[in-house]
Amino acid sequence: DDIRDAPLTTVHALSGPFSVEGAQPGDLLIVDILDVGPIPQEDSGPLAGQGWGYTGIFPTVNGGGFLTEQFPDAYKAIWDFSGQTATSRHIPGVSFTGIVHPGLMGTAPSAELLARWNAREGALIATDPNRVPALALPPEPRDAVLGALSGESFETAAAEAARTAPPRENGGNQDIKNLTKGSRMGGFIDLHVDVLKGGMDTYGVAENAIFMPGNTDPQYSQWLAFSGTSVTLDDEQRYLDSHLAYQRACLHAIDYLTKFGYSPEQAYLLLGAAPIEGRLSGVVDIPNSCATVYIPTAIFDFPVTPSASGPVRIDAGPGAPRSVAR
Amino acid sequence: DDIRDAPLTTVHALSGPFSVEGAQPGDLLIVDILDVGPIPQEDSGPLAGQGWGYTGIFPTVNGGGFLTEQFPDAYKAIWDFSGQTATSRHIPGVSFTGIVHPGLMGTAPSAELLARWNAREGALIATDPNRVPALALPPEPRDAVLGALSGESFETAAAEAARTAPPRENGGNQDIKNLTKGSRMGGFIDLHVDVLKGGMDTYGVAENAIFMPGNTDPQYSQWLAFSGTSVTLDDEQRYLDSHLAYQRACLHAIDYLTKFGYSPEQAYLLLGAAPIEGRLSGVVDIPNSCATVYIPTAIFDFPVTPSASGPVRIDAGPGAPRSVAR
Amino acid sequence: DDIRDAPLTTVHALSGPFSVEGAQPGDLLIVDILDVGPIPQEDSGPLAGQGWGYTGIFPTVNGGGFLTEQFPDAYKAIWDFSGQTATSRHIPGVSFTGIVHPGLMGTAPSAELLARWNAREGALIATDPNRVPALALPPEPRDAVLGALSGESFETAAAEAARTAPPRENGGNQDIKNLTKGSRMGGFIDLHVDVLKGGMDTYGVAENAIFMPGNTDPQYSQWLAFSGTSVTLDDEQRYLDSHLAYQRACLHAIDYLTKFGYSPEQAYLLLGAAPIEGRLSGVVDIPNSCATVYIPTAIFDFPVTPSASGPVRIDAGPGAPRSVAR
Amino acid sequence: DDIRDAPLTTVHALSGPFSVEGAQPGDLLIVDILDVGPIPQEDSGPLAGQGWGYTGIFPTVNGGGFLTEQFPDAYKAIWDFSGQTATSRHIPGVSFTGIVHPGLMGTAPSAELLARWNAREGALIATDPNRVPALALPPEPRDAVLGALSGESFETAAAEAARTAPPRENGGNQDIKNLTKGSRMGGFIDLHVDVLKGGMDTYGVAENAIFMPGNTDPQYSQWLAFSGTSVTLDDEQRYLDSHLAYQRACLHAIDYLTKFGYSPEQAYLLLGAAPIEGRLSGVVDIPNSCATVYIPTAIFDFPVTPSASGPVRIDAGPGAPRSVAR
Repeated sequence: DDIRDAPLTTVHALSGPFSVEGAQPGDLLIVDILDVGPIPQEDSGPLAGQGWGYTGIFPTVNGGGFLTEQFPDAYKAIWDFSGQTATSRHIPGVSFTGIVHPGLMGTAPSAELLARWNAREGALIATDPNRVPALALPPEPRDAVLGALSGESFETAAAEAARTAPPRENGGNQDIKNLTKGSRMGGFIDLHVDVLKGGMDTYGVAENAIFMPGNTDPQYSQWLAFSGTSVTLDDEQRYLDSHLAYQRACLHAIDYLTKFGYSPEQAYLLLGAAPIEGRLSGVVDIPNSCATVYIPTAIFDFPVTPSASGPVRIDAGPGAPRSVAR
Repeated sequence: DDIRDAPLTTVHALSGPFSVEGAQPGDLLIVDILDVGPIPQEDSGPLAGQGWGYTGIFPTVNGGGFLTEQFPDAYKAIWDFSGQTATSRHIPGVSFTGIVHPGLMGTAPSAELLARWNAREGALIATDPNRVPALALPPEPRDAVLGALSGESFETAAAEAARTAPPRENGGNQDIKNLTKGSRMGGFIDLHVDVLKGGMDTYGVAENAIFMPGNTDPQYSQWLAFSGTSVTLDDEQRYLDSHLAYQRACLHAIDYLTKFGYSPEQAYLLLGAAPIEGRLSGVVDIPNSCATVYIPTAIFDFPVTPSASGPVRIDAGPGAPRSVAR
Repeated sequence: DDIRDAPLTTVHALSGPFSVEGAQPGDLLIVDILDVGPIPQEDSGPLAGQGWGYTGIFPTVNGGGFLTEQFPDAYKAIWDFSGQTATSRHIPGVSFTGIVHPGLMGTAPSAELLARWNAREGALIATDPNRVPALALPPEPRDAVLGALSGESFETAAAEAARTAPPRENGGNQDIKNLTKGSRMGGFIDLHVDVLKGGMDTYGVAENAIFMPGNTDPQYSQWLAFSGTSVTLDDEQRYLDSHLAYQRACLHAIDYLTKFGYSPEQAYLLLGAAPIEGRLSGVVDIPNSCATVYIPTAIFDFPVTPSASGPVRIDAGPGAPRSVAR
Repeated sequence: DDIRDAPLTTVHALSGPFSVEGAQPGDLLIVDILDVGPIPQEDSGPLAGQGWGYTGIFPTVNGGGFLTEQFPDAYKAIWDFSGQTATSRHIPGVSFTGIVHPGLMGTAPSAELLARWNAREGALIATDPNRVPALALPPEPRDAVLGALSGESFETAAAEAARTAPPRENGGNQDIKNLTKGSRMGGFIDLHVDVLKGGMDTYGVAENAIFMPGNTDPQYSQWLAFSGTSVTLDDEQRYLDSHLAYQRACLHAIDYLTKFGYSPEQAYLLLGAAPIEGRLSGVVDIPNSCATVYIPTAIFDFPVTPSASGPVRIDAGPGAPRSVAR
């Protein structure tokens, strides 16, 4: 019900902002994520860990998602954590080491930058204001989470504050792996910040983040990969459209996984949570982009590669989302 | 001169097609790449290895490339091979283990599938037939490479054969790493093929390739990553345009690398050849896609990460492409 | 002083033993380490984390260590933790992602197995009872840590309980990486246990542990390796002595690192804490075993590989252990 | 028959020695292995590739091997190559990417160093000259391979030339992975050599090789590991004997694999060829060394980890070595 009906007025309940002593516009912040994780289940208090998270397919009428044309309805899968390992009562036959990441992290925009965001996103919305799902989301005063602000200050800020869903020049919601996406589970993060005075100019950083991933991500050595090109399901040729190419790659992966007994929704939800890799493969050979999605085979507890004996059929289980005609 | 002026009528000189005994439409071919590589320099004969390859920036007037708006002119960098290691006389300070891959591999289309390609690509061209660079390339009889065909057979085939540049449902030019891109260097490949009768239906494979990468690709454990979102350089907001997001990520990387002394063209050519990773990171948070490009730091022989002491300035060398005003 | 003088009567303060419901002799326990780590520094209470650990060279007169012939005196290096990253005020120029591991974990021995240990270790001690350092350590009632036992029960158990230092058939102190070795820092571990009834016979497990490492250990892709063979420093030929071969490999690594400015003790302490790999390379070619030690180059903040310009000399710093004549 | 009976007078047919221009004693050679591999099967000529290699258990009476006490008789397994992949008609259920390596590479010793080898190895032999297998092997003029030498030059050299089996200060037979061990298959190697004048002193290299492995070794992400300690099968306690600890670890692995249907000889031959890791784990906790052997689970085409359902029994096949009573 929550995925289907709850209005997405409050998406992210963020910590911060923090004031970094001595930092000025143009400086480069070097942020080390010392630790990040869900709060353990056994802890008490208002943010007590719940030991689980979820992945949702938001319906087209409530924001939609990556494949909303093919998956217009709401579905949800719960992921249970045992140590680092995630399994789902709704998607049998898989388990993987979750990659915990903050999802959303960024700097606060200047008033000038915020105005640019609202202008350009408003212009996009204006091209098709009644589209479902919307092209972009304007500031939403209702349910705005603005810390200690109240009264007129609250109303002024809520009327112009940017929604936190999209990533922008300040960083923001640059999801890389989606395990905790949509989760409302309490978590924690431990940061260290250094300031490089004038570093934005020194290193040619106009906007957006430079980052260096850690060296303890889960390792997989065997992958099953699917490619897609920028042609629609209706055989319309698009020009170097890597977003479409990636949608086609993911749809190919979903079609493949259904041969093993998964419903399309289960396969889609799995892609939304597992440590897959989405890659831009060919971006120059007109008119077709080529994008690829890589799935680690070790997350399945059955053989998932093609063989002469054909696919094993797993029991999708009573908790499986109902499949829909496509 | 070749990058700038040579008409791209002959792009790929392919081996094949091979007839696979017993294979019929609907069967799934399992192709193992047993070995692939450039022909060693010391071999003799018409395809003798030359010990080098190149990466080119094709000018807008001759086809263009991924960042042709920012890089409209022709540039070229030679890569010299010493064993698996590639270095360039035109891009100092870097060396890396090249990932040798065939670049282009696929099945021959049926007459029906070929007709669909020509129809949909022709429709795209018709929307802006005089665009430079073109939206797509129609069949090109001039300089067609069609093996033993001659006379009327040649002319009929050349008039309708699809160009090999783009990837399509049959696989084709699905470049993943671009080292050998544009290379005319003779190479070899050793394949093993199994046939899974009826396997396309069994495994839900309608088109395009499923593949499993080998486990001997060069390993890197430290990466410098740049992100981009789907906003143009003119601050126009696009809707979930992952292709644009990746262009912006690459432009951020180029800007960063120029602070170390590289010309923008050198940095761009480096991205076109080195074992970088291009990833689709955020594809759902309207209106902004987020794409990322990861560069392994170990390919540089100087410290390339941000530090308080600022970037080292390398000597771009006399062989460096001239920089252009941007 | 502690490394030099404190008698090693209490080495490990262990948690447990735990009784596993339903487990009987011959069953196989499958233990999942869900989480393990030091207690964060900010926690309070008697086991509050201290944010640091240490590596020690125990002097020959107080137990000695792996290279006690070459390093007979006491030294100690403190490692400070910032997130997962360890640095040392005593060994400049290095930092690495620590691999947290329990070090010591095992099952309680049966009375019969305990008797066998005491018999065979006693027989070894008897061959040279006054050797310094000792060949093995008999039960040590003084300072024995035996939980709630007291009075006669304490005395009986303390008189025959095996020392926890060596690994034995029950698992025990099977150190793989030595970061936390010798540390008295409070830590925690979260375990999950399954019982495979009769599994020891089913899987041919007579003793010792089978284990599967996790897939989130820190990754390194460039290593500097040193080999050694089973010939003593006095040029005496030993027969397939892999322990000696590994000592020689480590001494070669230490000699190499001193050329960069480290004292031999600093280099030795570094090998005792960093995520190095010690490998048995050649074990069949009489009379020489070959063992190797691999050091990840990324842990150094200076170039550590051989080059024509010779080794950089780092400043070993005021906190460096004094070097000794060798 | 060859493994059992052929006298091991000619073990290695080496290429070289090569004279490196300008190199003098005390200089450090930096050797890059540009390429190495078996000669392809389709090549012709006296060294035509045969597409296979083998692993042998040499019987105690013909030199013996690592576990000769437990495996005194001769066995042999053929490995067939398809591209990089090795499978065996004698060890079903496994396939892996072979790691091709030269096995043996070194510098020629000075007359003085050669004299030291012969002296110290002769002294070892003299302690038990009739031992089977021998403690070491003296120079063997019979079947000596000495290039173009003949007549008196041949006889003088053959009488004092060191056997190539063991690794020594000059490098030599430092096997790391044993795939090509014992193989007589023709191969090739492409080297690049740089000379660092006086580099042995500059870098503290007295002997033996420093090396840096490449970054294209096959990657595995799941391992099954077995540990062993320095206690004999007869329960005799040895003092920090890492060679024995590793023998015990390997025997544990062999016992485990026999539960899946392999004969002990098959399991032992598998350990001798597959890309396993042999590690020195605990080397300081008197009296027990701890050594470990890691086997990548992906090389098996059946589930090889412990589970409640017990081990799968594979069909060891008609080509399986006969099992012996142990």
